[in-house]
Amino acid sequence: MDSALKGLVVLGSTGSIGRQTLDVVRGLRDRFRVVGLAAGRNVVALEQQVREFAPRLVGSESADDYARLKSVLPAPAPAWATMEEMVSLPDVDLVVVATAGKAGLHPTLAALRAGKVVALANKEVLVMAGHLITEAAGRGSDQIRPIDSEHSAVWQCLWGEERSSIARVILTASGGAFRDRSLEELRRVTPDEALRHPTWQMGRKVTVDSATLLNKGFEAIEARWLFAVPFQNIEIVLHRQSIVHSLVEFRDGSIKAQMGMPDMRLPIQCALCYPDRLPCPSVARLDLTQVGSLEFSLPDLRRFPCLRLGLEAGARGGTYPAVLAAADEVAVEHFLTGHLGFMEIGTVLEGALEAYRPGGDLSLAAVLEADAWARTWAEDWVRAKT
Amino acid sequence: MDSALKGLVVLGSTGSIGRQTLDVVRGLRDRFRVVGLAAGRNVVALEQQVREFAPRLVGSESADDYARLKSVLPAPAPAWATMEEMVSLPDVDLVVVATAGKAGLHPTLAALRAGKVVALANKEVLVMAGHLITEAAGRGSDQIRPIDSEHSAVWQCLWGEERSSIARVILTASGGAFRDRSLEELRRVTPDEALRHPTWQMGRKVTVDSATLLNKGFEAIEARWLFAVPFQNIEIVLHRQSIVHSLVEFRDGSIKAQMGMPDMRLPIQCALCYPDRLPCPSVARLDLTQVGSLEFSLPDLRRFPCLRLGLEAGARGGTYPAVLAAADEVAVEHFLTGHLGFMEIGTVLEGALEAYRPGGDLSLAAVLEADAWARTWAEDWVRAKT
Repeated sequence: MDSALKGLVVLGSTGSIGRQTLDVVRGLRDRFRVVGLAAGRNVVALEQQVREFAPRLVGSESADDYARLKSVLPAPAPAWATMEEMVSLPDVDLVVVATAGKAGLHPTLAALRAGKVVALANKEVLVMAGHLITEAAGRGSDQIRPIDSEHSAVWQCLWGEERSSIARVILTASGGAFRDRSLEELRRVTPDEALRHPTWQMGRKVTVDSATLLNKGFEAIEARWLFAVPFQNIEIVLHRQSIVHSLVEFRDGSIKAQMGMPDMRLPIQCALCYPDRLPCPSVARLDLTQVGSLEFSLPDLRRFPCLRLGLEAGARGGTYPAVLAAADEVAVEHFLTGHLGFMEIGTVLEGALEAYRPGGDLSLAAVLEADAWARTWAEDWVRAKT
Repeated sequence: MDSALKGLVVLGSTGSIGRQTLDVVRGLRDRFRVVGLAAGRNVVALEQQVREFAPRLVGSESADDYARLKSVLPAPAPAWATMEEMVSLPDVDLVVVATAGKAGLHPTLAALRAGKVVALANKEVLVMAGHLITEAAGRGSDQIRPIDSEHSAVWQCLWGEERSSIARVILTASGGAFRDRSLEELRRVTPDEALRHPTWQMGRKVTVDSATLLNKGFEAIEARWLFAVPFQNIEIVLHRQSIVHSLVEFRDGSIKAQMGMPDMRLPIQCALCYPDRLPCPSVARLDLTQVGSLEFSLPDLRRFPCLRLGLEAGARGGTYPAVLAAADEVAVEHFLTGHLGFMEIGTVLEGALEAYRPGGDLSLAAVLEADAWARTWAEDWVRAKT
């Protein structure tokens, strides 16, 4: 075992970002050793990953899955560990949090408290509990490295810059699958249509969030915490080419943008290797003269009320974003199974935000309580409707 | 006199960049004290500047001009000094080189050798003698700060980055006054037309260089020296909006761009205040959704042979760029006075580059000899023609 290798844990290793992380790690064997892999229910994929990367530890959602995994792997099979245990081990340097939903919350806090660098792809972690996460990370540190293409872009634009000189963070939005649909058309879109994103290959939940543009509301909330920017200084612009991944305006009026082909392996590699930039041969090069034109416009909040609601929840702060994220998880699930219309996702979110009465407590318990309250409220709303 | 103030010398103070530098300094009186101002022949403007900024030293091209200046200024008038003397004084920290042509060469070398930070706007200095200038500055240091909007953009994109991770430097070109003219139309353009640049307000010589696109060839040569990039890794793209001032591609495929409204006061302030970014209230803010679209295309080397010649001279290196710059100074002068057609500028440059036989010596004396040779050659060519 080479002690110069950095110990890596990937949480959510069989998801879209998890798999692409291991793609990148495959090319960086001289830098990283995979110590642990945690997955949800995809044991087949996890088995392959264990065979290839030989982690010392694995995690899965159920103990049965682990037993099955152990029975097919050659001895010694990796030991089973919870995500919190895995991220806290002494020989772990970097934790990639590529879980979905609130599953990443506790392990992220555990990793930060154990002093690990966290490469963060799980939006809900910052949306729900950004104040707790940044507190655990310590202000201004680079202990959290974003993996989302937008936040990676902002982060890269900030290398060598003082955060105090940020005037605005400008997040770009491709506009999602339905950017050109009318309000009337949007009312009739199907789950299948919503899952066809024009640019990015992503998980189902985030692809629907991308179609409603709620995703950008979440990203604005994440940006607020990642870069310590007042929420009103974060703007969303539509940029259908998905070439400019995001921008930062500094207080002198200078703007920096980060661009590239839409390929998540680039921000993943950035997060893994910072401050080094290494060749990334599998990622196609951007030729601006081939792209020809980069377009920017304001998003239409009337057709995309979820973006408006995301920005409102972000501006209100406190536990409102947790309520929004939880209600959205329920609403998207019901949309995908055909129980809710596309535009009803926003109706559920708006209803939940209006009905919610925050207690003022911002502890982790209060955040989880807000989350549970919103899930129940949203489930009740859908049940009452059907 | 406050010792926390940085001592500033502005060479070429009455030219376009010099005046804008003093505009910026007017808002930064708590940071800078103007120690010296040197101008060419515009004594009226120099007198006003001396009254406002009260430098200890002034320089002008002729002793007569100084005598006239002294006679109208209240005692004690600033003392007269050469540019080389001015930049070497102990209480000078930063020298803005905003002279035109080769006039800035000796003072820039003197300033660098005296350990001063040089904010460089004079293209010819690096085009003619980039090897000597970077040698005097020492490798990798930030002793030279570019003021040109393109190079400032590249420089800003490199803050916090390793220069070894640069894959390409991509310089943007507005395309100049004649970007949409056919070859036939280009043969008939007048000096008046050539002096109407679509975006930037600049001096006459650089505006014509901008119309021939030779300017971009010069900028590629400058970039090579400023950023220690192999010449073949520097590319030119047309970008008519002049919003993206230039870009850097890193070896992982990530591209950073710097943008802003076209206003030289922004890169000037960057060069003066680095690493601080200060508010620049007089510069208009860029709103990408107002701009709408940013376009990129390849330059047409057939219509703009001067760009091709610039890139060829840059690739050949040695004293070829000095020959190019000197022949261009002569050719542009004759174009402005009506003795040469617009497309004949390229003919002169091509002829000079073909006729030139470099001696292999790269000393300052050899550079100046190449310069003198090219001037004579170009003058002879024009005389033979008329």
